[in-house]
Amino acid sequence: MLYRPNPPISFTGAVLDRADHIRADADKLAELMNWRARLLRLDGLDPVIGDDGALVWGTLADAGEHDELVFLGLDESGRACFAPVSPANKGNPGPANPRLWGAMASLPAGDLATYGGARALVDWHARHRFCARCGYTTKLGKGGWQRKCVNMDCKAEHFPRVDPVTIMSVEWEGNLLLGRQPRFPAKRYSALAGFVEPGESIEEAVAREVHEEAGVRVRDVRYVACQPWPFPSSLMIGCHAYADDPAITIDKTELEDARWFTRDEVVYAMEALKTGAEDGAFIAPPPFAVAHHLLKWWIEQ
Amino acid sequence: MLYRPNPPISFTGAVLDRADHIRADADKLAELMNWRARLLRLDGLDPVIGDDGALVWGTLADAGEHDELVFLGLDESGRACFAPVSPANKGNPGPANPRLWGAMASLPAGDLATYGGARALVDWHARHRFCARCGYTTKLGKGGWQRKCVNMDCKAEHFPRVDPVTIMSVEWEGNLLLGRQPRFPAKRYSALAGFVEPGESIEEAVAREVHEEAGVRVRDVRYVACQPWPFPSSLMIGCHAYADDPAITIDKTELEDARWFTRDEVVYAMEALKTGAEDGAFIAPPPFAVAHHLLKWWIEQ
Ligand SMILES: [Zn+2]
Ligand SMILES: [Zn+2]
Repeated sequence: MLYRPNPPISFTGAVLDRADHIRADADKLAELMNWRARLLRLDGLDPVIGDDGALVWGTLADAGEHDELVFLGLDESGRACFAPVSPANKGNPGPANPRLWGAMASLPAGDLATYGGARALVDWHARHRFCARCGYTTKLGKGGWQRKCVNMDCKAEHFPRVDPVTIMSVEWEGNLLLGRQPRFPAKRYSALAGFVEPGESIEEAVAREVHEEAGVRVRDVRYVACQPWPFPSSLMIGCHAYADDPAITIDKTELEDARWFTRDEVVYAMEALKTGAEDGAFIAPPPFAVAHHLLKWWIEQ
Repeated sequence: MLYRPNPPISFTGAVLDRADHIRADADKLAELMNWRARLLRLDGLDPVIGDDGALVWGTLADAGEHDELVFLGLDESGRACFAPVSPANKGNPGPANPRLWGAMASLPAGDLATYGGARALVDWHARHRFCARCGYTTKLGKGGWQRKCVNMDCKAEHFPRVDPVTIMSVEWEGNLLLGRQPRFPAKRYSALAGFVEPGESIEEAVAREVHEEAGVRVRDVRYVACQPWPFPSSLMIGCHAYADDPAITIDKTELEDARWFTRDEVVYAMEALKTGAEDGAFIAPPPFAVAHHLLKWWIEQ
């Protein structure tokens, strides 16, 4: 069951059928690991992109002798698609590297969705080779959608992780609150964001993050749109909220700056991404970020 | 920053200030571990409830000698609140036990929010005493909001897990799709649900789950409300979607049954929870479940 998001947002719009019922069916899985099966080529955790600008696939013969294989799903012609987890891959919980930003801007939507899911899974396997409950080694199970502890007194099952993150546009009298982290490119401002913690709702997380990072209290939080973000395994949940008091107190351990921007400034900055103009009040987040969609949504309201 | 959800939903409406800036401040944290600090009493992972129907708190003197302490936040009078992680606690990834259902129905909203967050954290610590990257032991850090690997060649930092789960009301021509799992009490039907997987959006997860479990294709997925659900660490994301074709194909490995219920049947079942009537078409999910709010929201539309 493939679902077409509207509007399209990067990393959504999957073209592979996850065929979840196959994962636990060892016989079926073995049968699908045939000469027709496709293996996603990866350079570490980065995608390998062909001359046609699309992801490069090989066959299972391209897998390393000790690679574990993750079943990504079935393509339109029913071929099974896999991604390799190499023993040499130590995983990388860090943010995307600059080379990847280029790929995110250029890959076809379906390929980006495939790559995002594959990367998150391969990275998770690379960083979860041991059992968090007992310290023994784990082995891949259910076509890569599980790792199981080999300690027969434990047998703990571990599942790939997805970390919900709230990211929010905050409005005060027609102005929008945006902030910048020290690692951002010059003049880039984006929506504030933070992880949802155990025991809180999305709305509570939004309110807490905005207050922690900018000292601003919000009300009337609403959901706008979301995006999987595989660096390493976030689910970005885009929300909008209102503030009654514009006073800002910046948490300098999190943000370098936070400011209110006028609607005109936001409109100009979004247009400038297309025209290349550099004289705006700030540089808006790129189209493949959910923050971009939050700003676009807000302008259109 | 405390946020009042509207409508109130169980496990939301936190009364403790998480005071996130204190977690990384070892001096401040040590200073707060004084005679005024409060320790949440737990019976394994279950709450201890006093004669007044509220959570029972002790002092840090009540902690076991080898307990690790998790900083939950500050109460209204600025006292630091902690929960104990006992070495005897092995964690419990399973669903809530029947005794807990009673507590969930009776605890004051703020207490339930406090308990939910504390339970999810304590359970996570109990099940993550080892480093998933290298297998060494880990120790509690940042006031319990991190575990750090003691292997100096690894030093991996691990953070409490929150697992996003979609749960959805699906509508076809004024009827609602509900299902029952074999473990449900007799006649209980509830909204279908399933984990969001790496690489998919909330909306894609909704469409995939409904198709996998009931063979129904959906469109126009929208967010309705959410709820933290600490069994062990879910974030229930309630959505609504529409179906164009009512044909159902049940995945018997997941569901015992799935059916369309008329609006009148849903209205009667929700009323029956209050009146105790047992002659409805089904028994609706209890008020502390987000599925209950989805049904209520749908009736009110
Ligand atoms: Zn184990
Ligand atoms: Zn380690």
